[in-house]
Amino acid sequence: MQLQALLDEVAQKSQGRLVMTVKGDVARDVTRFNTPEAAGATHISFLTNPAYAASFKTSQAGVMVMREKDATALFGDDVPAHTTLLLCDNPYAFFAYAGQVFAKVTVAAGIDPRAVVEAGAEVDPSATIEALAIVKAGAKVGARTVVKSGAVVGERATVGDDCLIYSNVVIERDCVVGNRCIFQPGSVIGADGFGFAPFQGEWVKIEQVGRVIIGDDVEIGANTTVDRGALGDTVIGKGTKLDNQIQIGHNDQIGEHCVMAACVGIAGSTSVGSHTMVGGAAMINGHINIPAKSQVGPASVITGWGEEPAAKTSFFPMMDAKQFPVLAAMLTRLPQMRKDLKALERELARLKDAQANA
Amino acid sequence: MQLQALLDEVAQKSQGRLVMTVKGDVARDVTRFNTPEAAGATHISFLTNPAYAASFKTSQAGVMVMREKDATALFGDDVPAHTTLLLCDNPYAFFAYAGQVFAKVTVAAGIDPRAVVEAGAEVDPSATIEALAIVKAGAKVGARTVVKSGAVVGERATVGDDCLIYSNVVIERDCVVGNRCIFQPGSVIGADGFGFAPFQGEWVKIEQVGRVIIGDDVEIGANTTVDRGALGDTVIGKGTKLDNQIQIGHNDQIGEHCVMAACVGIAGSTSVGSHTMVGGAAMINGHINIPAKSQVGPASVITGWGEEPAAKTSFFPMMDAKQFPVLAAMLTRLPQMRKDLKALERELARLKDAQANA
Amino acid sequence: MQLQALLDEVAQKSQGRLVMTVKGDVARDVTRFNTPEAAGATHISFLTNPAYAASFKTSQAGVMVMREKDATALFGDDVPAHTTLLLCDNPYAFFAYAGQVFAKVTVAAGIDPRAVVEAGAEVDPSATIEALAIVKAGAKVGARTVVKSGAVVGERATVGDDCLIYSNVVIERDCVVGNRCIFQPGSVIGADGFGFAPFQGEWVKIEQVGRVIIGDDVEIGANTTVDRGALGDTVIGKGTKLDNQIQIGHNDQIGEHCVMAACVGIAGSTSVGSHTMVGGAAMINGHINIPAKSQVGPASVITGWGEEPAAKTSFFPMMDAKQFPVLAAMLTRLPQMRKDLKALERELARLKDAQANA
Repeated sequence: MQLQALLDEVAQKSQGRLVMTVKGDVARDVTRFNTPEAAGATHISFLTNPAYAASFKTSQAGVMVMREKDATALFGDDVPAHTTLLLCDNPYAFFAYAGQVFAKVTVAAGIDPRAVVEAGAEVDPSATIEALAIVKAGAKVGARTVVKSGAVVGERATVGDDCLIYSNVVIERDCVVGNRCIFQPGSVIGADGFGFAPFQGEWVKIEQVGRVIIGDDVEIGANTTVDRGALGDTVIGKGTKLDNQIQIGHNDQIGEHCVMAACVGIAGSTSVGSHTMVGGAAMINGHINIPAKSQVGPASVITGWGEEPAAKTSFFPMMDAKQFPVLAAMLTRLPQMRKDLKALERELARLKDAQANA
Repeated sequence: MQLQALLDEVAQKSQGRLVMTVKGDVARDVTRFNTPEAAGATHISFLTNPAYAASFKTSQAGVMVMREKDATALFGDDVPAHTTLLLCDNPYAFFAYAGQVFAKVTVAAGIDPRAVVEAGAEVDPSATIEALAIVKAGAKVGARTVVKSGAVVGERATVGDDCLIYSNVVIERDCVVGNRCIFQPGSVIGADGFGFAPFQGEWVKIEQVGRVIIGDDVEIGANTTVDRGALGDTVIGKGTKLDNQIQIGHNDQIGEHCVMAACVGIAGSTSVGSHTMVGGAAMINGHINIPAKSQVGPASVITGWGEEPAAKTSFFPMMDAKQFPVLAAMLTRLPQMRKDLKALERELARLKDAQANA
Repeated sequence: MQLQALLDEVAQKSQGRLVMTVKGDVARDVTRFNTPEAAGATHISFLTNPAYAASFKTSQAGVMVMREKDATALFGDDVPAHTTLLLCDNPYAFFAYAGQVFAKVTVAAGIDPRAVVEAGAEVDPSATIEALAIVKAGAKVGARTVVKSGAVVGERATVGDDCLIYSNVVIERDCVVGNRCIFQPGSVIGADGFGFAPFQGEWVKIEQVGRVIIGDDVEIGANTTVDRGALGDTVIGKGTKLDNQIQIGHNDQIGEHCVMAACVGIAGSTSVGSHTMVGGAAMINGHINIPAKSQVGPASVITGWGEEPAAKTSFFPMMDAKQFPVLAAMLTRLPQMRKDLKALERELARLKDAQANA
């Protein structure tokens, strides 16, 4: 495609927030990204880390993307004639946005005759419902949204515009999904939360009548599960990205623009503030409030939090398998060790006294 | 609905075990639960914690559910005229049962013409097989059971009466499911257990010819997996509730009326006694016997158990991310610290002797 | 079936590497394996542990499989007349291979009319595509491969010969699967890796344009997820077996003949060398190189590795729930304890000096 067309699409995707300065030909053809060493006339290379700047000196890339100060340091006023220079503050974000443009696949709109769209469902004419996808009664699917084979949009559920619902995703009854969301295969939105009343040694199911409400630009990973609320709703704020195999419990309130790596589990009724980052396999108890802009380390168990944003972590450090049993045994003797230590301190104090008085 | 009709259904659901005493009008109309503050004439409020009793004094709820002693403390003989009082030992269980009645959705019986029911499968005429659900050859589906779109009942598998099998559940060949079970979306019952014979540096698959046998009133969470037995069967006892993202290994024997929170993993050939509670993300080794009425804490690693029921837990306590590396390093020096401590004790004893003999 | 036919199939499956010596009748009929105590004339019993040899003395098993030295110790030259003796180095591997022969189910080849095979897909005439299975445009399915109901073979994906793709598996676009692979229900191959560029407090998706490449004889567990590469490919080497609920991140390079138990998580860009064994629920950070023939213990958190293969493990040891809060509190005081200990050592040294000088 033409570089100018690419820049236009990036500007639209970033809502004009990624400011670009072009030095050189914007009519040239661009086809893909490549490393500075391997790039040719229709390729784009981008520089984020100045440590790698040298290879741009001799690069044949038709387009180079970098910060203005890096360009000045590299070329001064002497930009190579074969190159169009794109200056912007965040070359990596440009790479991300432009990569989306390159990867864009156009799919034919319409409902495949082998799909099931039940009576009373509303599917925008520009949406794509693939073969064996299911849109239940009362559900709504927005403009340009793609529901792939085997995915289920449940009864009265709403999916916004420009979403991509991969195969075998289940969006349960009454859930609400914003615009530009991506749900990876096998994710389940709106299964019942885990609530039971104890009664005479048995567990009586408490109906989960809340919903899941998902904001714009949310990504949900493969086989991740987000439970519906017990009475109120489970909420995932706009721009939040969840990796695979994550469990979000009922009534959790996840803020905006959070990221959570794979295998995280969050029990019910916990809130996670906006812009919080959660490392892989972290486990977070229920009924906790984590302030915005906090950080949870990988494989950590979070049992509470203060009022302030913070970075919390900890897991048992790895060691050689032979060393571990010794240390594990030692660990349980820790209280005794502390007692012994305190006893020694007292003993020593007595001894000093005795010596002083001798 | 009429309060009397609700009480009749609750009595049936609880098999008459939830004993209710009614004081007031049982012909009145009831529509839902609500908080005592917000409740109106057709609403039900329930009191479990006496600390919240005061708000019932002025509540306009048409029906109040509480323990007899709480009612006496609240109203003495002076029950408000606008209220029907329901006295029972377990108001929370009443809430759970009655909530099921309110939430009940009637679905049309029958096999959707776009479902696949293979030759030789038996589906009760009162069951519902939704579009694109699959019932394989030789499978049986019981009375009033609902198999939702995309769910698969495998070859010769049996599903009992009044079950709810959500979308994209897979029940593999030959597995047996009791009555009134609920399988949340994406759960997999009866995948092959993990068994391989080592042979010349490679792994030769051992066929998993056992089944999964699931009792009555079991709930299985979204994307939870229960493996079939290697030779014998994997068993989940009646009334047990499993949350999302749980893994149950081959030949595990899970007792009755257990609850397990999300992300639990249990390796193969382990037994978990009835009425045991397992916290989220706990990991339990294989070939362990956990006695009935035990408790496993969240995020704990269980490597063995004694003969007695017990409560076991432990995980690395969370801390500030800055503090953690220091502590982690310290931890590995623990054996050395213990040696130092013992050396100090001996030294001090020598010093005392020397002083005494001086 | 005839014993000779069974031996022929085992020889073929093991590619002639499982050398068998037969003593007795190879024309006899065999139907299944059984314990030596319960086995009858058409049953096979196998001995792996000499501790259990005694029960073979009186066994009525028509076929006994054991090592030559065990047979000599048991029977000398006096093999029971009713028994055919199979001598081989690895009776357990024989059991595994022969069990595969017994369990083999013949399914009718062909595409069910209710399956969806899109235009431009290539399905070998000997393959089986069940009802409601989906093979997307440009995909290829090899000889004798079975794609079960609800499974999706994505656009341009390739599945080799003799594979078994269970229900509701999703193989995403462009992925490549070898021969004789088994994918358990609900597994997802080739979902997008987790990659986002930070930009003004938001996260911009980085297109994941790599693939997943899976070698021959790989097994993938139920609801396991293997992400596609960001730019290059995610690779799983031949003969590797993954249990359920595992997460493999983008660009991971998993070697050959590895085994990983359930609930393991591996972050992106990590390599795991061939013949490595990973215990259940182990979590492995990204960008780590684990050498071949290493061992990762269960529930361990791996944050790095040296150049050499090794066994690493560690997790917080379980304890009584009452004991845990004390120990957890103690743990955080460990740095202080170490300081106290060092102070005591200095104090004691001073005291000794003082005494010596007294």
